[in-house]
Amino acid sequence: MAKNQSVAADAHAPAITEQLARFVATHPSRGWSDAVEAEAHRTFANWFGCAIGPSAHETVQAVLDAVQVLQPAPQASLLGRREKVDIASAALINGIASHTWDFDDTHLKTIIHPAGPVAPAALALAEHLGKSGRELIDALVLGIEVSCRVGNAIYPDHYDRGWHITGTTGMLGSAAACARLLGLDAARTQMALGIAASQPIGLREQFGTMTKPFHPGGAARVGLMSALMAQHGYTASRRALEAPRGLLQVFSDKADWREITEEVGTRWEIALNTYKPFACGIVIHPSIDGCVQLRNAHVLKAADIQSVTLRVHSLVLELTGKKTPATGLESKFSVYHSCAAGLLYGQAGEHEYTDEVVNRPEVLALRAKVEAIVDDRIDEAAADVRIRTTDGRDLHVLVEHAIGSTELPMSEAQLRAKFIGQAEPVLGAEKAAAAWALSRGVAECPDMHALLAAGTLLA
Amino acid sequence: MAKNQSVAADAHAPAITEQLARFVATHPSRGWSDAVEAEAHRTFANWFGCAIGPSAHETVQAVLDAVQVLQPAPQASLLGRREKVDIASAALINGIASHTWDFDDTHLKTIIHPAGPVAPAALALAEHLGKSGRELIDALVLGIEVSCRVGNAIYPDHYDRGWHITGTTGMLGSAAACARLLGLDAARTQMALGIAASQPIGLREQFGTMTKPFHPGGAARVGLMSALMAQHGYTASRRALEAPRGLLQVFSDKADWREITEEVGTRWEIALNTYKPFACGIVIHPSIDGCVQLRNAHVLKAADIQSVTLRVHSLVLELTGKKTPATGLESKFSVYHSCAAGLLYGQAGEHEYTDEVVNRPEVLALRAKVEAIVDDRIDEAAADVRIRTTDGRDLHVLVEHAIGSTELPMSEAQLRAKFIGQAEPVLGAEKAAAAWALSRGVAECPDMHALLAAGTLLA
Repeated sequence: MAKNQSVAADAHAPAITEQLARFVATHPSRGWSDAVEAEAHRTFANWFGCAIGPSAHETVQAVLDAVQVLQPAPQASLLGRREKVDIASAALINGIASHTWDFDDTHLKTIIHPAGPVAPAALALAEHLGKSGRELIDALVLGIEVSCRVGNAIYPDHYDRGWHITGTTGMLGSAAACARLLGLDAARTQMALGIAASQPIGLREQFGTMTKPFHPGGAARVGLMSALMAQHGYTASRRALEAPRGLLQVFSDKADWREITEEVGTRWEIALNTYKPFACGIVIHPSIDGCVQLRNAHVLKAADIQSVTLRVHSLVLELTGKKTPATGLESKFSVYHSCAAGLLYGQAGEHEYTDEVVNRPEVLALRAKVEAIVDDRIDEAAADVRIRTTDGRDLHVLVEHAIGSTELPMSEAQLRAKFIGQAEPVLGAEKAAAAWALSRGVAECPDMHALLAAGTLLA
Repeated sequence: MAKNQSVAADAHAPAITEQLARFVATHPSRGWSDAVEAEAHRTFANWFGCAIGPSAHETVQAVLDAVQVLQPAPQASLLGRREKVDIASAALINGIASHTWDFDDTHLKTIIHPAGPVAPAALALAEHLGKSGRELIDALVLGIEVSCRVGNAIYPDHYDRGWHITGTTGMLGSAAACARLLGLDAARTQMALGIAASQPIGLREQFGTMTKPFHPGGAARVGLMSALMAQHGYTASRRALEAPRGLLQVFSDKADWREITEEVGTRWEIALNTYKPFACGIVIHPSIDGCVQLRNAHVLKAADIQSVTLRVHSLVLELTGKKTPATGLESKFSVYHSCAAGLLYGQAGEHEYTDEVVNRPEVLALRAKVEAIVDDRIDEAAADVRIRTTDGRDLHVLVEHAIGSTELPMSEAQLRAKFIGQAEPVLGAEKAAAAWALSRGVAECPDMHALLAAGTLLA
């Protein structure tokens, strides 16, 4: 026998589905500060590079092989590749690619990776419809605003339950961005959000498998299709997000509506976006940063290190506590491997997370010397790193903000270096440089033609 | 700051993802009784007719218009129509069509509509791959076993929360059926289930909108794509269903693993399937049945009726309590409209749920006389109907099992009449009769050719 919903439902929630839709449909183009505009471009360019880097990865190849079974029409480009596929599949595959190395962007308030679900859907649609870079950036800013505000409303409860918040809010951001690009009015945008609300994607249980990067890609696809369906008259609940049985109350005990309704159009979540300097889960970054700092300050070699003791927030081990990762993918969820790599090589880019590196004897030996202790007095964004040397020294650093955090953002040069480091092996030096310049200034592009000529192997 | 998951997680759950995958991959073809085999055919034929009936409905047209933007390859047929689309889109659209009139099948233990997510995915794949009817039925039985057993494990908690269980379990059934048709081994079938586990579809909040029938269609598409991705080497968690942060523990407080592990291969959920005699939410059926019984027994006209008093389980009003529906779609979620239609016309097929009928003065007048009282001593599957006549009579019936229930199943003649009633207006009499015969005996078909020639407007 069914009973009533056990959680007390809020029947008087504000009409956020309608409010978000009106905002997305009517906010003026470039209706934000220069700082927001600049961060939107950093977001897009960083995402673009992150989608190019792993474009030949087996994860991308596997989903492309599956999509090819559908004999897709060549409507939209796959970054870093020669193939074209239909726009929905391009959104899916470019979205998967961009999160494959776990090297993309992070909205630290919610641990959402904001661009992954929004940018690929907007890019595919903009390419197909001949939209301008200005329209693309408008869609990106508004889409990310929707998903991150919904994330703010439900974090941390929703995430704690086991949902991968990037994909479970991302389909709303993607739907919003695509509705904007399609020029849908507020009523149809509301339907697009409503259709997408029935399709949250992502479980944290998938971390360490190919299905983790599927989440932003799948969300991108869902949002794009939801917007197309709404454009053609498909309907959904007008209160799909906020109703007592709407998405937010169904999948989160916390639903702080003010996070969605307050300062809309004046405060921008994309302004808080950050970019990863290390190709792994964001919660490991302070630990790696601390290891690299001590390595460089004391010119440490592996033989100098007797033990490494991390004190970290419990979330670090929840998310990245794999003690003995066997593959490159698993090692991205291992604070132990990451610190060993940082100590040995002074960095933790994608090259430090390959199957080969993970199983090197020197890595295994050093990894075994890393111990992590949970201490919830340490902030999620911090790490306390202590190294005992074989000659008896006790080295220590408390990293309060890692490089790449809001407080210590990646510089323009660092962001460009990260982009080129990913794009050049795929595209060659000349195209990689052009792809950086065009994506970093995409609002000046009259359409997506030059950008995609640079960012793919088609031309 | 994130905290640990509030619900006590079961870290020792049995390996149901692996067990279900092995079962799906290895159970022998037609490894069940004649009774199960017969019910599987009734399930398929009923679904086939339900997908043909509304094939020209605006809901189907809207999603097809959106899909046409992708310029899909003509791989698979749309029932009742002339177009062909790619197999994933065919699964989506035929799945949506089959639930558009809310006239399909019901697994009463969970209120899952089992065929909707499974049959269209299996049919599209079977058509494209040239599979036999035998293989189709095997896939259907095994796919429905997976989704209904998962449903048994989590019902009612999961449904009470607000999830539409048909779409939130259906993607697993669809993935299982497609994995079987693709001939995936147990390991890849496990990956297919894992990929699908990240993509549950459906909120009860959408009831009364086009997004309700989207849920089985969307789930069909997700399962098909998950199986294709697994076939091409895409990976997911091996414990995607049962892990502490796996799907079942994330979206339901109840997870009774024994519902999944016990009597596998000997007890069959498809044997419990039922078919709707009325084109509306299943919980209204006893009330309509009671009204029709009293109308026929006492030859009641509208003018004879002073008041109608229903005593029903609370779920009836939760799901179908719309007092003043304005459209045909809304009226399917109104026990008031449904009883008025039953009393006036002696039936509640699709023709009694049109915009026109909903707004007829005689319907509005009688609808206003219907009162529903919640009484949780009444079973969900029952209704107590009392009619006060204008000449002072007090008529009463307690319907313990409505027609179409497990206890009072639709006869073969009734099922055929329901099929023909839906298919003939679309296909004409000759093709409708052929479509019934071929779908009711589909295991004899060497491939899908004749079945789809009868069930579409292509030939």
